[in-house]
Amino acid sequence: MSVVQIVKIVGLGAVALTLSVEWLGWLFCRLWPRKITRGPLKEVFFFPTEVACTERLFTPDSPFPCPCPLPHNVNTSFTRLLGHILSASSSLDLCVFAFTNLDLSRAVLALHTRGIPIRILTDMDYTLITGSQIGAIRRAGICVRCDSGAVHMHHKFAVVDGRRLITGSLNWTLTAIQSNKENILVTEEPDLVLPFITEFQRLWVVNDPARRHLLSIASLVL
Amino acid sequence: MSVVQIVKIVGLGAVALTLSVEWLGWLFCRLWPRKITRGPLKEVFFFPTEVACTERLFTPDSPFPCPCPLPHNVNTSFTRLLGHILSASSSLDLCVFAFTNLDLSRAVLALHTRGIPIRILTDMDYTLITGSQIGAIRRAGICVRCDSGAVHMHHKFAVVDGRRLITGSLNWTLTAIQSNKENILVTEEPDLVLPFITEFQRLWVVNDPARRHLLSIASLVL
Repeated sequence: MSVVQIVKIVGLGAVALTLSVEWLGWLFCRLWPRKITRGPLKEVFFFPTEVACTERLFTPDSPFPCPCPLPHNVNTSFTRLLGHILSASSSLDLCVFAFTNLDLSRAVLALHTRGIPIRILTDMDYTLITGSQIGAIRRAGICVRCDSGAVHMHHKFAVVDGRRLITGSLNWTLTAIQSNKENILVTEEPDLVLPFITEFQRLWVVNDPARRHLLSIASLVL
Repeated sequence: MSVVQIVKIVGLGAVALTLSVEWLGWLFCRLWPRKITRGPLKEVFFFPTEVACTERLFTPDSPFPCPCPLPHNVNTSFTRLLGHILSASSSLDLCVFAFTNLDLSRAVLALHTRGIPIRILTDMDYTLITGSQIGAIRRAGICVRCDSGAVHMHHKFAVVDGRRLITGSLNWTLTAIQSNKENILVTEEPDLVLPFITEFQRLWVVNDPARRHLLSIASLVL
């Protein structure tokens, strides 16, 4: 086979390969549009949200319809937020200023019952507010650390399974969800998620009670 | 020229074109990495931030060094936030619960002096707190609308030039910036920015005093 023939075959082969890759890309794009055209998950919800029954999210396999008078099977900002929390399959790291909402507390306890590791960081002063769920969560055996500084631990974010960030202006309270004007942003964009994972880990270590105890002993000795 | 020759020429031409496009893509990627590899702007800042001089951001062309005792030319979470606000060239829409920070107020007034259209939505109750900048901003002629509902307008977001979203847990107060644990997320990702633009516009219309006045008259008549 001459050199010219080899060049021709290689050239035509390259064209065939290029066209195949292009066509496969187009096909992939049509079949799974989000993976190619939209990138990682990105959602925004606003509050207040209409009040709806959330029972189906907790007991999806129940054969009995919920008898409560609230609207059922309604997709609201809150049911979507709850769905993201309940979707956790390997971990939940939560860093929240105020936590009084009963449905969100039930979601956290449900994940704990499923054996999913949960870490909660919260503001010490706000564990004492009326209706705080931190006591019940602690009693269930979930690891909670409190920021006891003179100022507020004002974050309101969660990281689900180490890859899905839920952040915004919304505290985990009933007033925030049903009354206030609030926002929540959910994303799996690594450039946005990773800094929050790092910050959570930093705050988790800083607020380790054992570490604080050792530091206070050291300051007394020195 | 025979058909075989035409096929060869077209084939080799296609290969040359494909390789050129690939090479140009690689070159573009090397020269402007963010545009290709990272997609739209995505940044996260955490607070509290160290205190640093911000004078250079307001007077970048001043030949005189700032005589203040604070550290100069330091890149902190706050100088980056301030930089994003001051980068506005066509509009600033701000939806913030509490606004007492003097530097951020100065930035808003500087944009107004440059003739950039500014719209501010805030919580009525929080315009009355000590140090609120809303009065000074209104007196400068900037359009401010207040949410006077019984609950909080708890958002803390801004949209710069209709394309850059700044959102998070941080109120525009000195305590939030220098003391609290807070976060700010900055992005130009359209899927995240557009819902905030729509929500701002909705709240802006809802809180139009003229509309509220007409509605109250209508309720009296009916």
